[in-house]
Amino acid sequence: MRILGLDPGLRNLGWGVIEVAGSRITHVANGICHTDAGDGLPARLLALHRALADVVARLAPDCAAVEQTFVNKDAVATLKLGQARAIALLVPAQAGIPIGEYAPNAVKKTVVGVGHAAKEQVDHMVRLQFPGVRIAGPDAADALAIALTHAHQGRGADRLAAALARAAAGGERA
Amino acid sequence: MRILGLDPGLRNLGWGVIEVAGSRITHVANGICHTDAGDGLPARLLALHRALADVVARLAPDCAAVEQTFVNKDAVATLKLGQARAIALLVPAQAGIPIGEYAPNAVKKTVVGVGHAAKEQVDHMVRLQFPGVRIAGPDAADALAIALTHAHQGRGADRLAAALARAAAGGERA
Repeated sequence: MRILGLDPGLRNLGWGVIEVAGSRITHVANGICHTDAGDGLPARLLALHRALADVVARLAPDCAAVEQTFVNKDAVATLKLGQARAIALLVPAQAGIPIGEYAPNAVKKTVVGVGHAAKEQVDHMVRLQFPGVRIAGPDAADALAIALTHAHQGRGADRLAAALARAAAGGERA
Repeated sequence: MRILGLDPGLRNLGWGVIEVAGSRITHVANGICHTDAGDGLPARLLALHRALADVVARLAPDCAAVEQTFVNKDAVATLKLGQARAIALLVPAQAGIPIGEYAPNAVKKTVVGVGHAAKEQVDHMVRLQFPGVRIAGPDAADALAIALTHAHQGRGADRLAAALARAAAGGERA
């Protein structure tokens, strides 16, 4: 099963594809769709849609996972995020792919083991999970974390946390 | 020139198409794309995208106009609006149609003559502008008002205001 994780943002939309076969999870690809603030909103949404539709067509994921939006007090930022998030939800829906949504705390809990982990810890654990993989940036790491969360839903998130903890301990020894 | 006006909303996305030929403005069509809250966000965005893409394919507008978003204090509502708005901007962009954005006050100023007009006044003036036309609802009336605003940009918004005022006076006499 191939899972597409998405971390929506209007400036940087992170994506990551992983493959789950039995207990084995492998990295397929990751990247960031970037748009420039100077380009105007319709052109930016179109660019995100095209880039993401290309990822879905090329990598043929079986399902997608998106972080539930953290609604903050900055209304302008919330509006921008909503617009980017619509593209992240629309593209898989257009491809007929089911979409899971996960609260940020659920993602942190799965990947780091605690719900209140810092963003840097998520990034660190994702890199440990996929040693040697070039990760395009923090937004791509977040997208992979969301994909990992989806992979471990209903099949023992604790096991992943334990595996990641072992990897972290190994990483710290190295 | 055919203008597609759009009033984005996740529950009700209003649209209206008008045709401008010289000084003559005629109504082409209007409607509301409706989605149900129970359907889940990806399905709702997909439904809006399909319905709006169908309108664009069927009615072949030359340009589109969308209201600039009023960012309110309710972050959840802002996020929903942002998601619907992304679809309203994406569909014309995918069709290669230029999109104008107008502040709510500019729309009111054009259609009613004052920037602080009530929503009901906008609805009323739009109905007067297009006598005998069945208007699908307040969101469709707003969409037609946005299309009218686009039509009158740069070619004398005052003239429209005057014409509408005459129509209103006539309507009240009748």
